[in-house]
Amino acid sequence: MTLEEVGRSVWWGWGDPARAGSVPATALRRLRDELSLSEVHRPPVALADLSLPAPRWTPATRDAVTALLGADHVLTDPRARMEHAGGKSYLDLLRARTGETAYAPDAVLLPADGEQIAGVLALAAEHGFTVIPYGGGTSVVGGLTASDPRPHLSLDLRRLAGLVALDEVSGTATFGAGTRAIDAERALRERGWTLGHYPQSYQQASIGGFVATRSAGQSSSGYGRIDDMVLAARAVTPAGEVAFGERSPATAAGPRLLDLVVGNEGACAVITQATLRVHRAPSATRHAAYAFPSFEAAAAALREMVQTLGHDGQPDVTRVSDADETRVSLMLAGRAGRVLGSYLRGRRMPDASLMILLWHDSSDAAAAARAKRATPILRAHGAVALPARIARGWEHGRFRAPYLRDELMTRGVFVETLETATTWSNLPRLYAVVRQAISTALASLDTSGIVQCHISHVYHSGASLYFTYLAREADDPAEQWRAVKAAASSAIVAAEGTITHHHAVGRDHRDYLEEEIGEVGARILRAVKAELDPHDVLNPGVLIPPVS
Amino acid sequence: MTLEEVGRSVWWGWGDPARAGSVPATALRRLRDELSLSEVHRPPVALADLSLPAPRWTPATRDAVTALLGADHVLTDPRARMEHAGGKSYLDLLRARTGETAYAPDAVLLPADGEQIAGVLALAAEHGFTVIPYGGGTSVVGGLTASDPRPHLSLDLRRLAGLVALDEVSGTATFGAGTRAIDAERALRERGWTLGHYPQSYQQASIGGFVATRSAGQSSSGYGRIDDMVLAARAVTPAGEVAFGERSPATAAGPRLLDLVVGNEGACAVITQATLRVHRAPSATRHAAYAFPSFEAAAAALREMVQTLGHDGQPDVTRVSDADETRVSLMLAGRAGRVLGSYLRGRRMPDASLMILLWHDSSDAAAAARAKRATPILRAHGAVALPARIARGWEHGRFRAPYLRDELMTRGVFVETLETATTWSNLPRLYAVVRQAISTALASLDTSGIVQCHISHVYHSGASLYFTYLAREADDPAEQWRAVKAAASSAIVAAEGTITHHHAVGRDHRDYLEEEIGEVGARILRAVKAELDPHDVLNPGVLIPPVS
Repeated sequence: MTLEEVGRSVWWGWGDPARAGSVPATALRRLRDELSLSEVHRPPVALADLSLPAPRWTPATRDAVTALLGADHVLTDPRARMEHAGGKSYLDLLRARTGETAYAPDAVLLPADGEQIAGVLALAAEHGFTVIPYGGGTSVVGGLTASDPRPHLSLDLRRLAGLVALDEVSGTATFGAGTRAIDAERALRERGWTLGHYPQSYQQASIGGFVATRSAGQSSSGYGRIDDMVLAARAVTPAGEVAFGERSPATAAGPRLLDLVVGNEGACAVITQATLRVHRAPSATRHAAYAFPSFEAAAAALREMVQTLGHDGQPDVTRVSDADETRVSLMLAGRAGRVLGSYLRGRRMPDASLMILLWHDSSDAAAAARAKRATPILRAHGAVALPARIARGWEHGRFRAPYLRDELMTRGVFVETLETATTWSNLPRLYAVVRQAISTALASLDTSGIVQCHISHVYHSGASLYFTYLAREADDPAEQWRAVKAAASSAIVAAEGTITHHHAVGRDHRDYLEEEIGEVGARILRAVKAELDPHDVLNPGVLIPPVS
Repeated sequence: MTLEEVGRSVWWGWGDPARAGSVPATALRRLRDELSLSEVHRPPVALADLSLPAPRWTPATRDAVTALLGADHVLTDPRARMEHAGGKSYLDLLRARTGETAYAPDAVLLPADGEQIAGVLALAAEHGFTVIPYGGGTSVVGGLTASDPRPHLSLDLRRLAGLVALDEVSGTATFGAGTRAIDAERALRERGWTLGHYPQSYQQASIGGFVATRSAGQSSSGYGRIDDMVLAARAVTPAGEVAFGERSPATAAGPRLLDLVVGNEGACAVITQATLRVHRAPSATRHAAYAFPSFEAAAAALREMVQTLGHDGQPDVTRVSDADETRVSLMLAGRAGRVLGSYLRGRRMPDASLMILLWHDSSDAAAAARAKRATPILRAHGAVALPARIARGWEHGRFRAPYLRDELMTRGVFVETLETATTWSNLPRLYAVVRQAISTALASLDTSGIVQCHISHVYHSGASLYFTYLAREADDPAEQWRAVKAAASSAIVAAEGTITHHHAVGRDHRDYLEEEIGEVGARILRAVKAELDPHDVLNPGVLIPPVS
């Protein structure tokens, strides 16, 4: 195998999309060796083997909801309820494997519009129910995991879907909140436009979910985070409807209230539609992969690019793996990985850090011209060019990690990710402290494993850190998860990172938020929540720090 | 005079800085003819001719404040009080000419730090005073004009000044809120950096004032608005201190609370320091001026530049005058204006629209290369290149308009500016409707005058409109101002523009805000205000819509 042939086979590029999530036997064997795994096979419990309790509502409540939405849009069958029982957090996936049903909503509602949502919120307040807005169901931080003793309704927004308006003069597109990302992008591409937002949840997540959680996608270096893209949003609160940002892309008309809707995680408002900045769809992509002598050198190159190149040289996708993530990628990539590893050792890069860059543009020449402007910076930091196929392989498999996590859990691997961000000057400290905290926590549970990290979102003044850790599952995996998560979260807070860069707060990060926004910040959130949702109907337990 | 010599003399380029605000006799004569002015000379009333009432405080209050700040930092002399009696709004300037003293603060306080500010806020609540935070004193929307019957303290932040920290790795600078913009930029330039924020108030305004009012400067196309620049802020509220945004340039940790501090106009919090994104100072500037056959064509060129050129071609300063602003500029520019006007008529551009572009970069070659990328777009929209000296002339005189307004008012000219913004697709409607509303209002007062407009801030999905109107002063200039302002504001609201693009809400726009943010938006603002400032100590009457 030549270096040119390596591309497709590294970590991110396993298999074809049809096999998404299926772990090749050789890769699994290597992981078993590395993590001292035993043979385990524990898939999610089949629906037929679950027995759900009856919905906790009186006939009067049921009739009122049915009269509002129509019988077809009130679901109480076990499949619908279990599909809405939480999201995709580690604990959610664990519960699917233990067959826990306590988190299932009492009913799943499918409202048609904002008016029906307002009706549901009023009924919920009156009848003592809580409501959890539901988009694509991809929260990895417990954003959809009911934690209130009251009965709860899952408010699935799938009927608020589709492209409401495309303003080709202003470069904006308005979507119903329930529009799946993949459908939104398809609708835009058909008209020659793109949103350019590709988080790992892309294949399932919704536009409203992106906005509610301040999502950031893999092309954030070029197209920005969802917070940069959202120009306007409409939402329904128990206190009435809001519409912010529709008049102008910029204003000095007081505090930016749109930024209370963005990131509200369904705790204050149910987003019904969003207007997003869109761009002419690119027709060419330039791929590049580089090896750097160290993670630090690669990060320094990223920093110099984002601070000194304008749009012209700055790649649309930037991704740098630390030495451990690079090593594991090569280990799991089979022969291709061995070839590349041996090449890097030959180049005296035993701790090589792998960088993936993509430039999207209107033509191959335009993309190549932009890439060329980055070259001097990359070289100055010691970059060695690798086959572009490695970057294509990453692109090909880039939405696969979530499926893979599912399968690894089934096979007894404790696998989780978490992310943070900070200023460039604080990045080395944050990286070292969090990495150490996760390693120490895993070791103290006698489940030492792999801790790897990458940078995939860069800003003028800082960058994100995305950690993945894998270990042998302990006897009590929920407790194992809690111990490591607590250690990592405490380390993030202590080292002055943000508790979440793009996964949102949910329930998993809630108790760390007050350290970040302060006691007065927590009071502001509670005051806004109390004003908009005085009966605490909306997604109680998520985001808002309780009075301590 | 050749076309090459025209540059310096157009509208924005009058005289040298030492003569800032002095109107050349010939220009004034032309204005007199155009506006049918009579000879008037009514300067602000001299301090010696004013008699201020004694401060409305008891010895106990005075002693408590003095004990907190020290006698040197509690000012009650007439000069200090009158210098803090409002800002630079039209009504403020009018009051200076009628010798009104009712708006003077009872005392001017000069706190040293956040702790002393917290002390002042506590004392104010206890003793029944209100507090108006004061930066550079340049509010043009009544942001500093006391409107509450309680006695009031002006909280001048000048002692919270200076560069607190420069993080050259992260590209950020932290300033005390009272730092004057001009001092901040000087401190940065000495170290090779720039903020790149140059509103017309630049020579007097403060960093804290920029942040509190969501200011946008003339280089916003390149460097962004202050909202884009502010990464973090600290502020003191009656409920305690807040610090938002310091951990990371990007986060998904809930609603962006920093955006409640930015634009709060001193109604909820006293900003004490801000951390701003800074850039390596440019060492070269490319100037360009163009004439377009129409305002619409020039606006279309701006739109295409901002939507399709990245940083590379997009100018840092973009400014397009409509036909009336172009005509008046030429009229007031004397011989240079006549030469240029005759040239444009020769090019069959009787309704020419003048465009000024500046590119800042690290070298002449780099700036020129960027400018070159814009050329095809400009040409496609019918641009005719004019001497670059016109752009240099604009740059030279660009901070002069506020002084000029003062002098024109002294000479009996009714002169005011207002600004709005909207999406590109709504821009033509907003322009037509607001222009018509101002013209009609002036005509109905029998003071028909000049209504001119320019675009000076562009975004991917929209742009600002900045109107200047001049007329003969009516017998009751305050009433004249109110009538035109009301007509323009109602037109902005009706045509779905924002009530303010960068002047802020203050008192002058407050009653239009609820139309923009809705009833629930107004409730949110009141809830935040009530949580942070339960005794309504901070700048009462500004920003927050009252319960209707």
